[in-house]
Amino acid sequence: MVGESSSGMKYRKIPQETIIRLAYYLRALNFFHQEGIKITSSRRLAEILRINPHQVRKDLSFFGQFGKKGVGYNVDTLRDSLREILGLKHRWYACIVGFGNLAKAISLYRGFYEQGIIIKVGFDIVKRKVNKKYGNVYVYHIDEMPRVVKREKISLGIITTPQNVAQEIGEKLVKCGVLGILNFSPIRLKLPPDIVLKDVELAAQLFYLTYHLKRKRKGGK
Amino acid sequence: MVGESSSGMKYRKIPQETIIRLAYYLRALNFFHQEGIKITSSRRLAEILRINPHQVRKDLSFFGQFGKKGVGYNVDTLRDSLREILGLKHRWYACIVGFGNLAKAISLYRGFYEQGIIIKVGFDIVKRKVNKKYGNVYVYHIDEMPRVVKREKISLGIITTPQNVAQEIGEKLVKCGVLGILNFSPIRLKLPPDIVLKDVELAAQLFYLTYHLKRKRKGGK
Repeated sequence: MVGESSSGMKYRKIPQETIIRLAYYLRALNFFHQEGIKITSSRRLAEILRINPHQVRKDLSFFGQFGKKGVGYNVDTLRDSLREILGLKHRWYACIVGFGNLAKAISLYRGFYEQGIIIKVGFDIVKRKVNKKYGNVYVYHIDEMPRVVKREKISLGIITTPQNVAQEIGEKLVKCGVLGILNFSPIRLKLPPDIVLKDVELAAQLFYLTYHLKRKRKGGK
Repeated sequence: MVGESSSGMKYRKIPQETIIRLAYYLRALNFFHQEGIKITSSRRLAEILRINPHQVRKDLSFFGQFGKKGVGYNVDTLRDSLREILGLKHRWYACIVGFGNLAKAISLYRGFYEQGIIIKVGFDIVKRKVNKKYGNVYVYHIDEMPRVVKREKISLGIITTPQNVAQEIGEKLVKCGVLGILNFSPIRLKLPPDIVLKDVELAAQLFYLTYHLKRKRKGGK
């Protein structure tokens, strides 16, 4: 497994799934923090993610020594470490291209903002969508991208356009200086190797359910 | 790693990530199919997912023997097998509860429909949202859930409500006979162990970018 094979960086290879799970651990730790819980365990974190406690310990071991055997993890310390590891102590500015329903949902999603990822602006080409504010996100015409991305110090781009324009949008974002791209469109983008790129397949999550339900049926339930 | 620890089923434990990756392999194979490509390889699939070819072979090996050494995989055969494994040869009916922007985005998402998952109805409590059709999805008042879920033979529920009502909605869905639940709300649901449950953390995908970008900065880029 390769952390980010295309970047050409020389750091220890961390499985992609480990990074994704760190985000889920952080979410759990945020809840514990809110509820005033001070100490947790790999067993408790595993339970929440519905995985094996061994996996939790293995994931965390990539990044150092956390917690004490028989005592567990200090919630605030581990939470702080995960925020550091995930780069969330830094403030990130993002834009969304293609301002449909998914973009609106993402704009209003508090989970990003709370972690220091600020979705600052949106871009679209449709007249009735542009030059309007949606929540805290101002939507510009796509022709303004070079100027706005630079001015707002945007380094992350989220693509929620139809698939036929996604490649073109990806290239445009890179040209404007965006370094990381989250692609919700169902095509594979071809971008320079130093761009960090992640495709999201919403259907995959639902197929996880159908996979298990089919097996249950076979099992005679 | 545990396929679905809470179900109590006795089948071979498949890592959760393997199931998610199967959905991505299927997506790639659908593209190949559309483009008339007949043969592919673990290297090509790995490239698309940005993972190691070994991982592709390992994932597929859980389910049998696919492809021939030195020849590769037949696109249509593998595609057909993955659809079978993921339970997608069966038609599934789903509902969405909490009809906001995310629900609208999901309703219009073609990736579900094409694979045989039909989002039939939505539920909400807000007057201006109910008794209306959105795309192909009719939105009912939540009080109608028991009647509608039964009539429409719905077995999958998607929760996109605010978090303070998510638990109550989860219980309501289970009571109505729903067997699998996809939870977009940021709380952990407590439901009977025979319900297949998957939490989705949208932020996790974006943290994957910040993780890598932070490392690149440190690397002196």
